[in-house]
Amino acid sequence: MATLETPIPVVDLARVEANLRRMQDYCDAHGLKLRPHIKTHKIVELARRQMALGAVGLTCQKLTEAEVMLERGCDDILISYPMIGAEKARRLAALAPRARITVAADSPLAVETAAAAAREAGTAIGVLVEFDSGMGRTGVTTPEAAAALARQVADTEGLRLAGVMTYPTTEATVTFVAALRPLLEADGLDIPTVSGGGTPGAFRSHELGVADELRVGTYIYNDRNTVISGACTLDDCALHVLATVISTPQPGHFILDCGSKTLTSDLSGEGHPGYGLLIDYPDAVIEKLTEEHGIVRTDPAGPAPMLGEKVWILPNHVCPVSNLHDRVVVRHSDGRTEDWEVSARGCTR
Amino acid sequence: MATLETPIPVVDLARVEANLRRMQDYCDAHGLKLRPHIKTHKIVELARRQMALGAVGLTCQKLTEAEVMLERGCDDILISYPMIGAEKARRLAALAPRARITVAADSPLAVETAAAAAREAGTAIGVLVEFDSGMGRTGVTTPEAAAALARQVADTEGLRLAGVMTYPTTEATVTFVAALRPLLEADGLDIPTVSGGGTPGAFRSHELGVADELRVGTYIYNDRNTVISGACTLDDCALHVLATVISTPQPGHFILDCGSKTLTSDLSGEGHPGYGLLIDYPDAVIEKLTEEHGIVRTDPAGPAPMLGEKVWILPNHVCPVSNLHDRVVVRHSDGRTEDWEVSARGCTR
Repeated sequence: MATLETPIPVVDLARVEANLRRMQDYCDAHGLKLRPHIKTHKIVELARRQMALGAVGLTCQKLTEAEVMLERGCDDILISYPMIGAEKARRLAALAPRARITVAADSPLAVETAAAAAREAGTAIGVLVEFDSGMGRTGVTTPEAAAALARQVADTEGLRLAGVMTYPTTEATVTFVAALRPLLEADGLDIPTVSGGGTPGAFRSHELGVADELRVGTYIYNDRNTVISGACTLDDCALHVLATVISTPQPGHFILDCGSKTLTSDLSGEGHPGYGLLIDYPDAVIEKLTEEHGIVRTDPAGPAPMLGEKVWILPNHVCPVSNLHDRVVVRHSDGRTEDWEVSARGCTR
Repeated sequence: MATLETPIPVVDLARVEANLRRMQDYCDAHGLKLRPHIKTHKIVELARRQMALGAVGLTCQKLTEAEVMLERGCDDILISYPMIGAEKARRLAALAPRARITVAADSPLAVETAAAAAREAGTAIGVLVEFDSGMGRTGVTTPEAAAALARQVADTEGLRLAGVMTYPTTEATVTFVAALRPLLEADGLDIPTVSGGGTPGAFRSHELGVADELRVGTYIYNDRNTVISGACTLDDCALHVLATVISTPQPGHFILDCGSKTLTSDLSGEGHPGYGLLIDYPDAVIEKLTEEHGIVRTDPAGPAPMLGEKVWILPNHVCPVSNLHDRVVVRHSDGRTEDWEVSARGCTR
């Protein structure tokens, strides 16, 4: 590591493999289908490992991510995002004949977009009706609206009603599905899949018992937010940013060569200050970022790194960190390192 | 624009050209050397336009950015960032024979890194001694420390004392340089260049009168923060993100297909809520971002876009937005559009 040029994300492959195995074992033990979200790593090789361990398919957030994964041989992809409009329909139509594709929809217009794609492709496209479990993001907010969309999907040629989805899975998910099920049964429809997600609550999915498919992303690397949530320990965190102290203007004040272009501006919330955790200087606070500078304050009388020292940073939120980097350094358990391409970074469309 | 797939940054070239011309005219009128910072646009074609209008050279923040610009023919580059260590010296040595290179240094170790590069390259490298004008980032904090570094540079074979630099230029810059100048004169050294910067205060540089070189980046596009600072108007903003309304779960609540992967998580400070300004719905607040979702609240009784509508967003801080996108759409004044590559995005090292 001493000769690595900084700043650079470094992935500990042994920890990745332990994290993947733990989640797959959990899903297997509880009869859950695991559909990992590639947004956290965006790396084809890691998606392949998830599939090889037993994942039923992948989750992507955008069409471009799905295109990258599909080109590299993954053949069952959920795009867990409502797509709207003619341009999206055209691109979805190009994907559909090449893999088993499912999309999310939370409006009649999103269903129509999927239907237009299916017509153009001449291939069935699955649709999961998205509902809100309290996050206030996408997703219909009433069981009646979900039932109406499910009927629209079932009545549309070329679409397959794949079930319902939400993020994250909460108590509200249980209530919602319980209210929705009789509405659909009255129409002769069932819910093939209830797809839920979220790393922080993943290992308690069986307690709620409502979802039969688990969409999780962060579990592959974990991050400071996952540690704070109690869902993992620092030793389960598999991606760190290696940075260099490039300036020590005054005691208790040092500058790292990583800023918002490396760590993002995502914070961890009250009680957890700073833009990441300095593993070897946990009392130091990365209190401000500019694009290429991390400005750190620490006790002037306490331990602090020297000018030129390389330090390890655990990101607050690892997924957008992956998005900022074309490559990561992967450290194998035998100490060997290699560069891996983050093929699905920058896929916003 | 109606057929553009979203989300996508769109650059108005007529506004860019007006912004470039205004700043160059200002510098010409006041005898200032303009050295634009490419961090805002990261686009070779725009760097060429800046040079063609009269810029004395470019500013880059990292070696990788300098490599990209140098490979495309720009031959006078300041890397306004202290580099530390053997890996940086090696890469700097590879650049030095190919262009006039200047770097920042705020420690003896940064000067030694530049010296090692100059020795390996067999070419002179310029050094600007960086000092702090109140930002609390990099830069020495006393005139004595600056003078000592200037002497170290002057005494080191292969290094050229290019002067001093700071960011941003403030009243403290005037005081600092006034105290530093006699210290250097006592050693027979002068300050060839005082390099200052910052778009918000750029057009008042002549009032402070201390800097003879102006490093500015944001002025090419401007952004919501620049508008808030009073340095430009909304009509001077040249980059907007085009996004689509993908979900309208409830009145007063809609979701855009752009999140932190498109807009970044940078905020604009108190009194200016949200992660960007919706140009046609200025009372709506982009109150929360996840990676691919922009969650907007607005008056349920007020105007709101329809599902599927495309909307224009002015980013809070445009530089990291450029960094997130491989390409931007450039709109020429005749209405023609084309894609331009953001060649220097992702250059963190």
